[in-house]
Order: sequence, then structure tokens, then C-alpha cells
Amino acid sequence: MSEAKARIAVLGASGYTGSELVRLLLRHPRAEIVALTADRKAGQSMADVFPQFAPFPLPKLVTIDQVDFTGVDLVFCALPHATTQQVIKSVFEKAPAVKVVDLSADFRLSDPGMYETWYGHPHSALDLQKEAVFGLVEIYRDEIKKGRLIANPGCHTTTAILPVVPLLEAGAIDPESIVIDSKTGMSGAGRSAKEAMLFSEVSEGINAYSVGSHRHMGELDQEYSKAAGRPVKPMFVPHLVPMNRGIYATLYVRTTGAKAEDLHKILADYYQNEPFVHVFPFGQVPHSRHVRGSNMVMLGVVADRVEGRAIVVSTIDNLVKGASGQAVQNMNLVLGFPETMGLEQIALMP
Amino acid sequence: MSEAKARIAVLGASGYTGSELVRLLLRHPRAEIVALTADRKAGQSMADVFPQFAPFPLPKLVTIDQVDFTGVDLVFCALPHATTQQVIKSVFEKAPAVKVVDLSADFRLSDPGMYETWYGHPHSALDLQKEAVFGLVEIYRDEIKKGRLIANPGCHTTTAILPVVPLLEAGAIDPESIVIDSKTGMSGAGRSAKEAMLFSEVSEGINAYSVGSHRHMGELDQEYSKAAGRPVKPMFVPHLVPMNRGIYATLYVRTTGAKAEDLHKILADYYQNEPFVHVFPFGQVPHSRHVRGSNMVMLGVVADRVEGRAIVVSTIDNLVKGASGQAVQNMNLVLGFPETMGLEQIALMP
Amino acid sequence: MSEAKARIAVLGASGYTGSELVRLLLRHPRAEIVALTADRKAGQSMADVFPQFAPFPLPKLVTIDQVDFTGVDLVFCALPHATTQQVIKSVFEKAPAVKVVDLSADFRLSDPGMYETWYGHPHSALDLQKEAVFGLVEIYRDEIKKGRLIANPGCHTTTAILPVVPLLEAGAIDPESIVIDSKTGMSGAGRSAKEAMLFSEVSEGINAYSVGSHRHMGELDQEYSKAAGRPVKPMFVPHLVPMNRGIYATLYVRTTGAKAEDLHKILADYYQNEPFVHVFPFGQVPHSRHVRGSNMVMLGVVADRVEGRAIVVSTIDNLVKGASGQAVQNMNLVLGFPETMGLEQIALMP
Amino acid sequence: MSEAKARIAVLGASGYTGSELVRLLLRHPRAEIVALTADRKAGQSMADVFPQFAPFPLPKLVTIDQVDFTGVDLVFCALPHATTQQVIKSVFEKAPAVKVVDLSADFRLSDPGMYETWYGHPHSALDLQKEAVFGLVEIYRDEIKKGRLIANPGCHTTTAILPVVPLLEAGAIDPESIVIDSKTGMSGAGRSAKEAMLFSEVSEGINAYSVGSHRHMGELDQEYSKAAGRPVKPMFVPHLVPMNRGIYATLYVRTTGAKAEDLHKILADYYQNEPFVHVFPFGQVPHSRHVRGSNMVMLGVVADRVEGRAIVVSTIDNLVKGASGQAVQNMNLVLGFPETMGLEQIALMP
Repeated sequence: MSEAKARIAVLGASGYTGSELVRLLLRHPRAEIVALTADRKAGQSMADVFPQFAPFPLPKLVTIDQVDFTGVDLVFCALPHATTQQVIKSVFEKAPAVKVVDLSADFRLSDPGMYETWYGHPHSALDLQKEAVFGLVEIYRDEIKKGRLIANPGCHTTTAILPVVPLLEAGAIDPESIVIDSKTGMSGAGRSAKEAMLFSEVSEGINAYSVGSHRHMGELDQEYSKAAGRPVKPMFVPHLVPMNRGIYATLYVRTTGAKAEDLHKILADYYQNEPFVHVFPFGQVPHSRHVRGSNMVMLGVVADRVEGRAIVVSTIDNLVKGASGQAVQNMNLVLGFPETMGLEQIALMP
Repeated sequence: MSEAKARIAVLGASGYTGSELVRLLLRHPRAEIVALTADRKAGQSMADVFPQFAPFPLPKLVTIDQVDFTGVDLVFCALPHATTQQVIKSVFEKAPAVKVVDLSADFRLSDPGMYETWYGHPHSALDLQKEAVFGLVEIYRDEIKKGRLIANPGCHTTTAILPVVPLLEAGAIDPESIVIDSKTGMSGAGRSAKEAMLFSEVSEGINAYSVGSHRHMGELDQEYSKAAGRPVKPMFVPHLVPMNRGIYATLYVRTTGAKAEDLHKILADYYQNEPFVHVFPFGQVPHSRHVRGSNMVMLGVVADRVEGRAIVVSTIDNLVKGASGQAVQNMNLVLGFPETMGLEQIALMP
Repeated sequence: MSEAKARIAVLGASGYTGSELVRLLLRHPRAEIVALTADRKAGQSMADVFPQFAPFPLPKLVTIDQVDFTGVDLVFCALPHATTQQVIKSVFEKAPAVKVVDLSADFRLSDPGMYETWYGHPHSALDLQKEAVFGLVEIYRDEIKKGRLIANPGCHTTTAILPVVPLLEAGAIDPESIVIDSKTGMSGAGRSAKEAMLFSEVSEGINAYSVGSHRHMGELDQEYSKAAGRPVKPMFVPHLVPMNRGIYATLYVRTTGAKAEDLHKILADYYQNEPFVHVFPFGQVPHSRHVRGSNMVMLGVVADRVEGRAIVVSTIDNLVKGASGQAVQNMNLVLGFPETMGLEQIALMP
Repeated sequence: MSEAKARIAVLGASGYTGSELVRLLLRHPRAEIVALTADRKAGQSMADVFPQFAPFPLPKLVTIDQVDFTGVDLVFCALPHATTQQVIKSVFEKAPAVKVVDLSADFRLSDPGMYETWYGHPHSALDLQKEAVFGLVEIYRDEIKKGRLIANPGCHTTTAILPVVPLLEAGAIDPESIVIDSKTGMSGAGRSAKEAMLFSEVSEGINAYSVGSHRHMGELDQEYSKAAGRPVKPMFVPHLVPMNRGIYATLYVRTTGAKAEDLHKILADYYQNEPFVHVFPFGQVPHSRHVRGSNMVMLGVVADRVEGRAIVVSTIDNLVKGASGQAVQNMNLVLGFPETMGLEQIALMP
């Protein structure tokens, strides 16, 4: 590809992952936004829906049907679960050479049975499900470069997989022991008007949700089991915290003999050349504020007071590395751009 | 005791637990505040320090030395750790018949060795340490009624002990398996001016703190071990959440054969007559908002997707049931008042 | 009325003003809640809708049609604007002796023309509109005691009327000069699911709304004009602040010759015996936190650097003195109870 | 200047304006940070003080004495008021050719008498005070390009001057009528540990501060008077809002005959080519969230219900356009870089 700009469409631009894609792409030197869709808000300008974009020229919001995909290089799909399968199938029928980075959960589980178990219905695009690559860059970089359909991982998932996979691959922790207590900011719940997400319902408090049944566990099982070489089913509970952005996972593990320092060394070595992963010195943990607005993952390892037990902390910005930033990172790989292009923003603190 | 009011002194009235005591005592039908101390702010009125009290008549702030303890029925001691031991010793020397409810950590650990291990120095009031009663009302009600010195438990501790002790006593969970992920609001950090507690440092984010080394673990070990009849050392990590009030503990346990429903039944039975403990229906969990400003403990039990594993959620207001409310509950027992007197406030939501 | 409890119905119990009424009435020694309505949630228990009430016995939610008003002493009406007129008309037809405290805006404007101007349609219960008493206790105490239908004032209105009426009555300020910059917490926007009220839309920021056109201005005009004895139309802009509770009005005025100290003296004298109004010393202003959860109004007056100009600050809790607390205060007057009964809660800080 | 990078020193890098400068400069294509100072934290790495910078190479923190200013092209001075005068004097003595952008208030008032009135002591670097250029780019662009010492304006000031100066210059509003109700996020209060800035003191509430006496008024008087051609002393009250970033000013004005639409047209025309000023369509107002993290100013004009009165809203991010972003904008002018370089970040929402 020459220095010409890639032509990008964003399907579902009126939600938070959509607007975050627009924020990042407007400053990406090789991307040009040629289409923005939002079915219910079609006909409006992006500035009507998100006034922060008023100073910037952007295409009007249209319906998906109005997009001519033949002139598009890459499609970001930020649509709700389930509708996504049909939309992407239809996009590929119209434009087989287009690349797709899908931010929904529709193509993350490679096993059709597992998909059906977690989502309660059979997958309706089985060939594409087979073809899709799990878009966790630090683990699947080579596969992603060759992919046509990238399934961008979930936000809780990204946070919990990156610190655990190297430890499981090294056989350093007991797969049975893993407990993941995950905390997310409110933007992860999306922009739909729901009583439970009103300011007055969620500020000044905290609560667990989807206890024992959150669908992200399917992704965790898949990736943990692959890394361990045997079935793994961690304990996982997500919580809503009164902040806009951030996922903060506290992981409790037992080693297979290693010391906590050894776990730290495994992670530090594994990620030493990764531009978007930073491992804190042993004994220190990050705050979620340290990654807000950036594409970074920050990790920390601390010894428990009882030998053979350790605490691992992992944090990302759910809208960046947990969604749109990682999607752009995937775009960069798929289109042959430098991996960090357009993603160099440093955390906004405070 | 007749219908006359008890004469109450609050030592350390310029902090949040102190002001919370004043808030509750001003509306307590049998309590009269006769002395308020605040060493550095002595000479000021309470309204200077906390303008919300401006409409109410209250004694001026004085130093501890200025208090005549002989006319006092009960002393609340809301002073920092370590200074407390000497102060209470001296109070009892001046007025042996006075009752003391201490909100610091100084008298919570009954074993001198354990105290020295967690706090790094020997206890300086060993006789009192021996005499002190652990003021967790729902567990030690009878001992408290007869006590002279009540050691009001910590906020993380109260939250984590109440849901676990019945399960350990029943032998229903594996003591080795307990993981406690606890989240606290900012008022738990007190009113001292510290950079790390500034609004701009703690809002819009979350972080773990004192990972692997928090002193509250001493209280957990003590009470869990007593309930289990063997040494228990749970995993415990506290977190700071951008809210003023609330402790929210998510507990991960493995059963010794019981189902999650059985754990729920044990808790529901244990607490069925307790005025300040509410157990949610099986499968449901509380939010911290549901107890804000009240003296309630709310508990929930949910089955994990893997049999033999369960999630227990426990929440309190750290300044009420986690500090000043429980202190008043202890006062009511010690002075022979109805246990719920002055503590009937319902949660403020939103 | 004997020591027997008054039988109370709350229409619209599933919103925030409804739940706040229930919070206050549950602790009111002379009130018994006999009916709670919530049309869309009829059939559910109050604990389903507001889990903080789970520990307390309450009637099930029903539709308005299901309530037998003949056995009711007083009805609180916390319904949306416009539907209220018909509902109250119908309640009085069924039970003419019942008292009604209405928390909507339907009966606040006594002039039919003014009502039509602000609401865009004629009033549909003109007789009742004529009968209704404006329920601002500190101004209309005597009229309220004799009233059958009390129109509880709005939250912005209560905040802005109390500090200004005494100054206008005294002729101390120029009616043309009044600027009111009012800031409200989010609970004032209610519990309906609206995109604009999501946590992610309103936290970490501030915005003006209804600029130049807010309907509360009708109430301000009415009360200011009455106090001044001539038409007054203040400038007024409301703002949304990321907090749950509180109205905070900053008022900018020019005197007719008086000094700022004189304005302070007028207010201090006017409210010196009011249990729910506290005037700060001259030169000091309250925070909204000082009234959170309480029925207090707090006022402050400060001199501007230019003589003849002054700044007046007024703050209340929008759900208490701005809605349900003032409604209970009205109930106390109407039913002959002590005015402060059930309203003694002190501000919850932090 | 060639494409070589400019060598930049930041004095006072451990505060929020300092860290914001580092955030922006790290991504500025023509800037290289060669020195960072923080007297009390000298010897530490920037990552110790602000862990979000851990992934980036930066010079260690040193004392000001340790900096060799001869090799420096431009100095940002983000030190507290009063110490700044001496520091900058001494910097120019060591390196007369260096450029300085000062973020303190020390050089903003050009009149020595006015300085003494507001700050209570004579200025100690009168020559430099005379030389300094007021760094409000949109008003003083040409002067800044030629300046050696730029006095970066205050955050409240920037917000309130930009919407008013064009209106005063046009003679469209009555200078006597201006009321400015300004609201700021907490980061404006800095990173010093103060009780009044603790999370538990400032969240969940709002309050006015420095009522009638805020020093920023000196800057307002200076710029308003210059624009009006006569002395102007607006009414101004700042407020603290529980958010990290943002200044939001609501301005109440009376016209000299013009309609509100005319005011809008004046502002839209005045700023039509400005890259960092966006004027909303007439009748609409921005939220502070629309500029968070960006260097934008957003303005809105709305007609009041009474003819001849209007409401103007102005918002910026206090740490960007209100401090460090504007400072970089000034640097770009002074060093001959494109004005928008390094400042293209779009608002982070949510």
C-alpha cells in the first residue's frame, strides 16, 4: 500500500466505541473516514450526536444499506451482538476483498458449540466464524497480519487474558486456582438509555453484576484452556465502578512451586518488547488512571503473605485497548501500517 | 439506668468517624454530648470544622486534657492508631467506671504476639488488651453487654467477617479457599491532607492498595481461625473506589460438599432475627448504595458455574456499620438501651 | 387528631421523590403508609424497585385505580406534570375530605393565563388551581395550615425564592438586577431512562440546560413580583452538576442603597426563628454538602468589591427541602403535627 | 529554525500543569524535553511521581539550580505564584536568549499598581513585568510571536475573556452589566495536599469560593477595560465542581441595543478562522465534556426571554487551553512552529 490513505467505514458510529474510533481515526495519518453509519440517527451529522466533533469535517451518518462497500478498504463494525453476524456476512458478499475488524462478541468464540452454549442460539455465519482471527495482538500478531476478519476481544477479556496466558504457558500457576475480580467503568455499558445506568443509579456506589453468568467467561475459558493445554474455568465476577473509563482486574493465583517473583519475571520477559504493555517493578501495582485515554496495558505482581500465592493486577482503558484502540492496532497490522500509528496518546491524568 | 440521658464524650471529633458519631448522637434520644475533643482544632466550635452542625448546639472543641471524665458515662475514642492505647489507659485511671468504645485498631487483636507482628511494636496496655471485647455485635452480643472496653471492629473486617463466620462454623466451606476482594469508599482514608487522597488523584479511577500487607488481615485471621477451629489465612486485597461511603466485599469460596444454596440457607438462618443484617434472596446481590447512610449489612449468595464454588457479596456503610454506627450499637448494649436506638436511619438513595 | 397515625398514600412511589417520601415517612412517628402506587410497576414490591427498603414492611405497589381513598388522610402526589391535574381532581371527587400535597408543577401558578403561557395548554382543573396554596412554608405557613391542596414548590424555586423575597419586601434590592445561576444534582432529573442522564453523559463535566426557557421561571416571576409589588423577571439559568443531590444558587444583586451587610441582616432577622433555615455569618457561604440529606436551607451573603453589589448563596437538598422533605413539612402543618416531626435528620457528610 | 528539535525545560514538573506539559510535549514533533525540575522531588524519576509516564524516556527530576539554561531554547515555568518572579529573573540573567512561557500569575498584570493591589506586595521584577506579553493567542497573536517572556493567562480568565472582548470592542454590550458565574474542575486547585481538596470534601457537592475576592479578577478588569476603552469591573464568582477538568463560565449580559443574535454573529465572525475556537449555532450551548483533554474553546449564545438580555456560555479544559495547551500554543508561536502543532488531540468523551 502506498502513502495513500486507507478508506475506512465505521458501522455503529453513535455509540461510545464508535465515537472512540472516530476520535482515533481523525488523528491517524493513514486513515480517511469515508462512511459512518447509525441506523436510528441516519441523516444527522456526527456533530449533532457528539458535539465534540463539531470542529472537524466528517461524513453524515447514514444507514448501513446506504454505504457503498466496494470503495472501502476496511470496515470497523461496532454493532450490538447478534445483528453483527448478518451484517458482516452481507458486507463480504458485496465486497469480498474488504477487511473487517469486528468489535462485537459475535466472532470471538471459535467453537460453534461453545458459541451456542453462551449465546443460546446457533451461529448464523459458521464459515466466517471459522475464518475469524482472535484480535488480541500481543498473542496472535502473526495470524492477524494475514487475517480478513478480526474479532476484537472484549474489554474484561483483554485485561484478564494478557497477564495469565504467559503464566499458564509456563506452567507456573495452578489453572484451578484462578480468581478474577474485575471492575469496569460505566462507558463499558454503552450509550443506550437504561434506568440502571443513570448517573443517580450508579454514582456514589459499586456493585457486582452478571454474577456467575457473564458471557465474557467464554473467551476466558477458550484462551486460558489453549494456554494451559487443558480445560480451565476461572472464577470471574465483573463490577460497575463510578468512573467513565477503565478496567481493573485483580487476579488471585496459586503457583505450582514458583515464587511470586518468578511470575513477575515471566511477565516482564514475555512483554519486554511490546509497545503497549508495561510491567511495573515487582511489588508495585498500577492505578486505572495511569492508562486512561491511552492504548496501554499496565501489569503488576505482588507476593501474598503466604508462600505460593500471588496477586496480579492488570488495567486498561476499556474504550481504547479494550475496544477501539485495539481495533485500530488490528487495522494497522491488517493494512500493513506501523503497529503504533495513531495510538501514541499518553494517559490523561487527572 | 433511668430515662435520664447518658453523658457522652467523643475524643477525636474533627475526623469523619468523629463527625459521624456526632451526627448519630445528636438524634439519639438517650445520649447527651458533653465533650468533644480535637487537639489541633481545640478552641474552635464544631461548626467551624463541620458547618453542617451549625444549626445545632454542641460543646466547643477542647483538648483531651481539658475533659473531666468523672462526669462522663461513655467515651467514644476516634483517635489514630497507637496514641489510643495511652489515652484510654489514662482515661480509665481517672474514671475507672466509665465505659469506652474504641474505634481504633489498638484493642482488636487479643493476642499480644499477633499485635506485635502486625503493628511492629509491643502493645503498651496489655491488661486492657486482655479485657477488651471485640465489638462485632452480631457475633459477640452477650460479651459486649458486660464489657467496659469495646474494640469496635474495622470496616473491611466487619464486612468480611459477618458472611464468613457462620459458614466456617458450619464447616460448609474450605478455609484454605477464601479470597476477599474488598472495595472501599474514600472516607475510610480519613480527613488528613494527603496528596494520594485528593479528588484529582482518586476520582475517575480505581486502584488496589496495601496489596498483600493490609493490617486488617490480623482481625480476619483471628476471627476466621476462631470460627474454623484451626488457623486460617485468607487472601485479601483492598481497593479504593471513587465514592464517599461504602465497603463492598466480593468473596470467592469453595464448599466442602455443600451447594451454594446451602451456604445461602446457613446465612439466612443465622441472621434471621438480626435487625441490622439483611440477606437477599438466593442469586441476588446488593449494591453498596442500598446501605449508604444506614447501619445495615446486606448479604447475597450466588452459585458459580462450577459446582462446589460460590460467590458471596457483603456490603456496609464504612462510616456507619463500619465505624460510628456500630459504635453506637455497642454503646446501646453497654448502657442497656434498645440495640437499634438512634440507628433507624434508612439508606439515602440516591 | 389523636396520637393515632395518619393514613398516607403516595402516588408515584417508583421515582426518586416517591422513594424519598417513603424514606422519610417510614421514620415519621405519626405517619402510616397505607398505599403506594406506580402504574407501570404495579404488582411489584417496593423492595423490587428500591432494594434499600427490603428490610421494611410496606404495601405492594398498585395502580391509582386500586387505591381506596376514603380511608386515607393525606395523599402525596409525585406524578409527572399534566397527568396530575386529572388525578387530583378525581381523588377529591372520591374523597373530598382528604388532604393533598402535590409535588408536581401543576398547581404552583395561581394565574390561569400564566399557567397557559408556560405550559402551552389551558389548565384542566381551574377550581382546584384557585384553591391551591403555594407550599413554601417559611412564606405561607398560615395559609398552608388551612389548606386542602398544597402545591409543593419546585427545587430551583425554593432555593431562589427564600433568599430574595425578604430583600424585595424590604425594598433593599433592585428587582431589575437579579441574576440567578442555579446548579442542580442529577436526581432532580428523575429516574426515567434518558440518554442525556446516563452516568457517562453527565459525570466529569457540567452544562447549562433549558437556557432562557426553564419553566421554573414562572414560579420565580410570581413570587418575586408579589414580594416587590411590581412585575419582576429575573435572569435564571439552571446547570447540571455531577452529584446526586443538591441545589446551589448563586445570586447576583444590586442594592437600592443598602450595603451588603444590610442584606445579610434582613435575611438573618427574617429567618431567625425558622427551624429549617440557617444564615451563615456575613461573608461566609455554605457548600451544598452541608445540607445533603437534610431539610435545611443554608444562606450566605458576601459583599462584592464594588459597593452596591452583593452575592447571595442559597443551597438545599433538592429531594428533601426541594421536594419530599418540604412535602412532609407541609403534611405536618396540614395535619396539625409539630412542623419538624420526622425531618430532624442531619446532613450526611461526606 | 531548522527541523531540529527545540530543547525544552519544564520548571515545576511535579504538579498537574507540569505533567500536562510533559504529556503534550512528549508527542510534539519539534520538542525535546531536556530538563524537568521539582525541588522537593529532585532525584526521583518522573515515573515515580506520575506512573503514567513510566513507558517513556524522560530526564530525571532535578532542582532548578542544576539546570544548565544555556543549552535550552524555551523554558516553561509552572511554579507557584511569587517565587516565579525571582526564578525567571535569574534564568534570563544566565541565558538572555532563552524564551520563557510562564504559567503563573506573576506577569499577567501589566500595571505595577494593579499588581500590588491584587497581590499585596510590590512586583520584584518590574522590567520583566513591562516586557511580558499577555499570552492569550487569539487576542495577542502578533505580539506573542515577537515576545521573549509570555505570561500565559489564567484558566478562569481565558474562559471569560474570549467571549467578552469582541462584544466590548464592538460596543454591543453594557460593560456595567457583566456577571460571570464560573465553574472549575478540581485539577485547577493543584496537587498540594490540602484538606479542602480531599475527595471526601469535594465530591458529591458544589461550592463557591473566594467570593468577591478572587485574584483572577485583576486580569478580567485589565482586558475588559482595554477592550471597552473605559474601566470595567465585572461581577465574578468561581465555583468548585466535582470533576477533574473543565472551566465552564455562564455570562449574563445586557446589550446596548443589539439583539442576542447580533452578539452571536459578532463572536462567530471574530473567531471564524481560529483553529481552537468553535462557536455553536445560535441558541445552543456546549458542555464542558466537549472540550475535555483538547485545546478547544467552545462558545454559545442564547437569547434571554427579555429583549436586550443574553446568556453567553464559554468552556475550556483548564489544564489544556486554560494552562499547558495554551502554553504550547504560545511556544509554537514564539519558536515559529505551526500554531496547532502537538495540540490536535480531540476531546476525550466520555
